[in-house]
Amino acid sequence: MCGTDQALVVKRTIPREDDISIPSDAVINLDHGDPTGFEPYWRMMGNKCTITFEGHQSLSYFSDMKNMCWFLEPKLDEEIRRLHNIVGNAMVDGYNIVVGTGSSQLIQAAMYALSSGVDDSSAPTSIVSAAPYYSCYPDIANFLKSGLYKWAGDAHMFDKDGPYIEFVTSPSNPDGTIRDSVVNKAQGKLVHDLAYYWPQYTSITAPVNSDIMLFTFSKCTGHAGSRIGWALVKDKEVAKKMVKFIELNSIGVSKESQLRATKILGVISDGCEKTDASSEMVNFFEFGQELMTQRWEKLRNVVKSNDRFILAKYPIQYCNFTKDFTESHPGFAWLKCKANEEDCSAIFRAHKILTRTGTRFGSDPSFVRISMVSKDEEFNLFIKRFQELQELPYQVK
Amino acid sequence: MCGTDQALVVKRTIPREDDISIPSDAVINLDHGDPTGFEPYWRMMGNKCTITFEGHQSLSYFSDMKNMCWFLEPKLDEEIRRLHNIVGNAMVDGYNIVVGTGSSQLIQAAMYALSSGVDDSSAPTSIVSAAPYYSCYPDIANFLKSGLYKWAGDAHMFDKDGPYIEFVTSPSNPDGTIRDSVVNKAQGKLVHDLAYYWPQYTSITAPVNSDIMLFTFSKCTGHAGSRIGWALVKDKEVAKKMVKFIELNSIGVSKESQLRATKILGVISDGCEKTDASSEMVNFFEFGQELMTQRWEKLRNVVKSNDRFILAKYPIQYCNFTKDFTESHPGFAWLKCKANEEDCSAIFRAHKILTRTGTRFGSDPSFVRISMVSKDEEFNLFIKRFQELQELPYQVK
Repeated sequence: MCGTDQALVVKRTIPREDDISIPSDAVINLDHGDPTGFEPYWRMMGNKCTITFEGHQSLSYFSDMKNMCWFLEPKLDEEIRRLHNIVGNAMVDGYNIVVGTGSSQLIQAAMYALSSGVDDSSAPTSIVSAAPYYSCYPDIANFLKSGLYKWAGDAHMFDKDGPYIEFVTSPSNPDGTIRDSVVNKAQGKLVHDLAYYWPQYTSITAPVNSDIMLFTFSKCTGHAGSRIGWALVKDKEVAKKMVKFIELNSIGVSKESQLRATKILGVISDGCEKTDASSEMVNFFEFGQELMTQRWEKLRNVVKSNDRFILAKYPIQYCNFTKDFTESHPGFAWLKCKANEEDCSAIFRAHKILTRTGTRFGSDPSFVRISMVSKDEEFNLFIKRFQELQELPYQVK
Repeated sequence: MCGTDQALVVKRTIPREDDISIPSDAVINLDHGDPTGFEPYWRMMGNKCTITFEGHQSLSYFSDMKNMCWFLEPKLDEEIRRLHNIVGNAMVDGYNIVVGTGSSQLIQAAMYALSSGVDDSSAPTSIVSAAPYYSCYPDIANFLKSGLYKWAGDAHMFDKDGPYIEFVTSPSNPDGTIRDSVVNKAQGKLVHDLAYYWPQYTSITAPVNSDIMLFTFSKCTGHAGSRIGWALVKDKEVAKKMVKFIELNSIGVSKESQLRATKILGVISDGCEKTDASSEMVNFFEFGQELMTQRWEKLRNVVKSNDRFILAKYPIQYCNFTKDFTESHPGFAWLKCKANEEDCSAIFRAHKILTRTGTRFGSDPSFVRISMVSKDEEFNLFIKRFQELQELPYQVK
């Protein structure tokens, strides 16, 4: 996750999955957004999402040779469209769906599709995003020293002429704000990274209908281990190039993961469509919204117990999905130490809480990004330690 | 499969998976090595390989935070080592295992690992392989115009000084021969692509113990749809960089596919270990060897029925796994039209058989590569049409 270097040096790690108890002195890793906080919902679903594979199934590379995206399982295509129609967060009619090994692969597929084949002798296309930007964009854009594209930094500072690609992350990772493009020049191409545009994180105000929209199973449902993402792509030629990228990069996408995602997205849609008041089943987004609301409330209580940290407030907006006015409860908290010179991540690290420093996002070290989607036990231990930290006498350097 | 362009223009395609009947005028696509020919074995295994996933499983990005390859399922690591020990095709003791989304991703991970971090100002590292080479290497090496590495063609023709990476594909794809490195200069690094070094294709003469060895689930068992490959890597620092590549490229590898691969590799090993003569169970490699032997016999019969095509003979060698002398039965046939000027692929295309032309492999158009691992129905239709083609009067241009 282009940030695990730090995570991997931790000697005493948090037990995952079925381990409930965490040693009270364990290091809590909130550096990455591992969405295990949604696990209780999936346990509650019992066998509704169970899927079985027999030995002879899904042997072929191909899922649908009639589809331009020949490695996309047809039923996954259907369930993706169905869920977007139910949630109302993205237009799907007339769009091509490209499935990827998580949205990371699709970010690269989009970079490739929008920069290749124009002019072989031209300089690499600039990749920009407004700071604070998703910390992986620079790494992803630069790690292979591609001659097709190159990271060009904060979109607010971009003043070059010529072609560029702007990633618009909305809601923003790390800061949770709703974003729009900022460069707006003639030769720009936009990629909307909508990983967090789901009702548990923010109000769904309108279906987005931009040229390329990226989504990921990880952030929608919490199934990060499946590595499934999808792109909704307006232009067929662009979609074709994205498919070509995935063909060259990994010859398609795991069938098992696609079929499991199909099942799980279907269960979510079924849950949302049940309007029967007598039904005991809580739909996934209601569960997620409640979880995130409670966590943000706890976090805000700790933050306001002292004058040392700042947490932005989000506007209250009408959500077309929940039919109610709601505040955003982002998947990450973007926290600032009031004393500007402070290395905020070091303060948390001293209390065995790993966060991601603001410098990684094109911001400064007085900021940290903290995952809000970890397991309950981890989140509660984080809140406890944060409260203890707040109660300590504050030493100005 | 960096060769599906041709495949995708086919309007009337072969029904996949559970469809048994193929229209007699259907186009037979043997351009790629879709290993569906092993499906009958997996059907025969009944529920021995069945695996079930519940909704709450495998949510996390992480599989084992104590492992450098943090996204590798520990039990897959175990079953990979167990199978190599049973088959005797590769040394595993002291090796690091890196799992990938198919071996395509690992090929790129190896290119990245062996070319990055040396000297930022240096020219891209040359990537070479002896012709006829795997047709995807040039595409994979060049598609992102990386500044780290660059395709430099046939290893036999390589005479530059400085660092280079040689891919040694053994048994070779496309021609099935056993290969060794050919450049052998001081600054060379080797990657052994051993996708087809399994008993159904060739004699296992010794366990390979080279620096980086690549394997893929697709070619070992036929489960191409799962997109699972693995690398055995001697040097820990190289393995770390390969892990970094996969982290940046796709944040790990599908857990569902890994766990299914674990189950299936385990069933294969169990089958091999059963030496009980009363057991009715045929082990997978015996089944595969019989299948490939029969197919090659049919193909050779057709080839020798006329004087138009040439098919190489392979040496008979002692196989340590089967404890017998066997000939190679490669996953692809590398067929040559005797009339050198002929476009061999066009001859087959005219008979609705798609093959991959020799030019894609750094060879000439008098060669074609033909998949030998398709479904029975496809293979039999191919043999039938090939026989008809052989019986036609031969028109010299």
